[in-house]
Amino acid sequence: MDPSAPRQMHLGVFILGAGHHIAGWRMPDAAGTSEDLAMIARIARTAERGKFDLLFLADAVNTRPDMHPSMVLRLEPLTLLAALAMATQRIGLAATASTTYTEPYNLARYLGSIDHMSGGRCGWNIVTGAFADAALNFSRGQHPAHDERYAIAAEFVEVVKGLLDSCEDGIWQLDKRAGRFIDPARMHALNHEGKYFRVKGPLNMSRPPQGYPVMIQAGASEAGRDLAGQVAEIVYAVHQDIGAAREFSADLKRRARQFGRSPDHIKIMPGVSAIIGGTEAEAKAKLAELGECADPVVALQVLAERLGHDLSGFDLDAPVPELPPSGVMRGHAETLTALARRERLTLRQLRNVVAASMGHRLLVGTPEQIADGLQEWFEAGAADGFNVMPPWFPGPFDDFVEQVVPILQRRGLFRREYEGTTLREHLGLPRPAWRA
Amino acid sequence: MDPSAPRQMHLGVFILGAGHHIAGWRMPDAAGTSEDLAMIARIARTAERGKFDLLFLADAVNTRPDMHPSMVLRLEPLTLLAALAMATQRIGLAATASTTYTEPYNLARYLGSIDHMSGGRCGWNIVTGAFADAALNFSRGQHPAHDERYAIAAEFVEVVKGLLDSCEDGIWQLDKRAGRFIDPARMHALNHEGKYFRVKGPLNMSRPPQGYPVMIQAGASEAGRDLAGQVAEIVYAVHQDIGAAREFSADLKRRARQFGRSPDHIKIMPGVSAIIGGTEAEAKAKLAELGECADPVVALQVLAERLGHDLSGFDLDAPVPELPPSGVMRGHAETLTALARRERLTLRQLRNVVAASMGHRLLVGTPEQIADGLQEWFEAGAADGFNVMPPWFPGPFDDFVEQVVPILQRRGLFRREYEGTTLREHLGLPRPAWRA
Repeated sequence: MDPSAPRQMHLGVFILGAGHHIAGWRMPDAAGTSEDLAMIARIARTAERGKFDLLFLADAVNTRPDMHPSMVLRLEPLTLLAALAMATQRIGLAATASTTYTEPYNLARYLGSIDHMSGGRCGWNIVTGAFADAALNFSRGQHPAHDERYAIAAEFVEVVKGLLDSCEDGIWQLDKRAGRFIDPARMHALNHEGKYFRVKGPLNMSRPPQGYPVMIQAGASEAGRDLAGQVAEIVYAVHQDIGAAREFSADLKRRARQFGRSPDHIKIMPGVSAIIGGTEAEAKAKLAELGECADPVVALQVLAERLGHDLSGFDLDAPVPELPPSGVMRGHAETLTALARRERLTLRQLRNVVAASMGHRLLVGTPEQIADGLQEWFEAGAADGFNVMPPWFPGPFDDFVEQVVPILQRRGLFRREYEGTTLREHLGLPRPAWRA
Repeated sequence: MDPSAPRQMHLGVFILGAGHHIAGWRMPDAAGTSEDLAMIARIARTAERGKFDLLFLADAVNTRPDMHPSMVLRLEPLTLLAALAMATQRIGLAATASTTYTEPYNLARYLGSIDHMSGGRCGWNIVTGAFADAALNFSRGQHPAHDERYAIAAEFVEVVKGLLDSCEDGIWQLDKRAGRFIDPARMHALNHEGKYFRVKGPLNMSRPPQGYPVMIQAGASEAGRDLAGQVAEIVYAVHQDIGAAREFSADLKRRARQFGRSPDHIKIMPGVSAIIGGTEAEAKAKLAELGECADPVVALQVLAERLGHDLSGFDLDAPVPELPPSGVMRGHAETLTALARRERLTLRQLRNVVAASMGHRLLVGTPEQIADGLQEWFEAGAADGFNVMPPWFPGPFDDFVEQVVPILQRRGLFRREYEGTTLREHLGLPRPAWRA
């Protein structure tokens, strides 16, 4: 990349089968089920046509019938990512996987395989598990406490990196004449003996094209921010307020520096939901229509998950109650609580915010207005890019790619063509050197 | 299927990146690395052109530099299967996954996703782990003992089935007008509380096209045969001798009957390695050439894994020593020991057998002779089909599909076209009914 070129925005699409607005699936052109591979592959190809850096799949390891419709039933993200590797050529492919409910040896293999099969396009969103009910699906008495989950995660990530470094680059010899298939001297055991994991290694896989998958993190708590400063290369953030977003970004980059890393190697990408119309009034009418279609029970449940408290006993038309912090989804809870306080929202109003964008920033307007909203945060240092959360698929995301992306390109803020082939190259991140 | 049609042979291809003969990779047209997705996808499409029932990926969760070259480094099978689902349309897609080193909630999702994404083509080879070293990669003090591994496996399979039945068929409502996305009454918790697993559920996925993946098993011990009789729909067997193979097949079908199952719903598919030549002499010369290229150290290591004993202290030119049974690869050990005894083999001779076919039946000859060898076992009730293990890829497998398959088709033993779309349909297995 030309070092004198202006700073470039990074864009990801956050794929949730039935869209991000809880009523998105009810719109006339909305996709069918949230398990529709053909539709998800279509979204991936649309994002690639839009030169997006990456697509992103969220996850949870539990469900209940009154969850957000996009989360109640879904394809498993790692296998889905592998399938999408075959349906695309250039776009980065990131999925969520839990450090609380998987084994590092298994996860290193899944991620490493996806990186191999996609030619270096894999990203891993490291989560510790935001739903305490998950423990009940894994023969565990209870979900580990918040700070312990992060301690486990930090060790887990080190083990995964160590396993992916089992083989030095150049292990393949393929010398048919001499009978030398690999160079055995370049394969190393890990011999990890930590507090939570004992993993001997080596991993049964050569070093992936990117070395490690691009590491993504979204924790907003003190422990989450520290883990992000240490290992994250993309941070998904939830912010409604540009000031809070700037502070968050500066804080994360400062932490990265403290861990000896370049602040350019940690990209802050807040979620943004965009409702696009030919005019502002048309966009607003669309949002109102969505709001009328939203299921109030599900919407309150989605808010309850984010605040970490059962809300069924509260008056919907009273101000949002003050609730103690819970051990889950800290970033969502803080952003929503701050918003409610700042704008004196009732519980019903906050519920409707969450129904629309799950607590993320909502932009409503013409393509120019959407682009303005992105540019403002980007230039203010509140974001290095955005995780785009379309209210439903495929229509609004087609609109984003066809109408908003060209504006960002004309303004010199976003690439017109891919320059590299790996996700690290799209993001301007170096390939990590092999570590003994 | 026409019930008056003659019984049909089932064929699978056992894909090991660098081939089954330990020296296969050294042949001039052999593929490069064992992690080559493009080559593996080519094999899958060749098998589909040959109307194979399924392709099969083996696995292990440990490695060492002196393992069989196809096993030392490899892509992870579940993610690979998901990628192959996108590269093929009709062929069944089966992979090995361990019940000792994964969690049933995770594995149910991986398998269910692959079944959804492939339109009902997933198979699962249930293994308990044949390599004791695996424990050291999973923070375990030691590999569980043989019979306990099978007890864990039996419960694990029940949990996976229960999770895949979390949703009744017809859960999708998609009634945009009424705002009914799913039918919540058709989603059920599992509430499993067993000896080894506590899993509440529900699984966050609708019921896959096949209900459950086709269940595959290869255990030859008493515990392994019982598990197979109870749950297996395909059994991979290792036999050199038609008499032993017939007894094995009859025993497995008898056990299936004892568990209330139809003997037609358990398909015995021994592994077969075929060395094909234009003449028998040409095929034998090929085998001899392969033998000369085989690495003697690796070959002895592959034999040692199968017998479950370190063999480095034994005289290669003395008769194969009598060794007590180990807790791993029981079927391989028994077949190889019987062969050595029957044919009075030295350790060196047995090592060379294993180098060629890993202990499986080896057919060497013209396409007609190969077809004869398959037909003989099929008609004698020693096999319902075969798991074809080409010595290397792609050449010998291309030959099998182009030269052996048409002979089987002309003889009325093998399909000329797929009739169904799912792996269950290829095998004539019913889709299991939903269980509360």
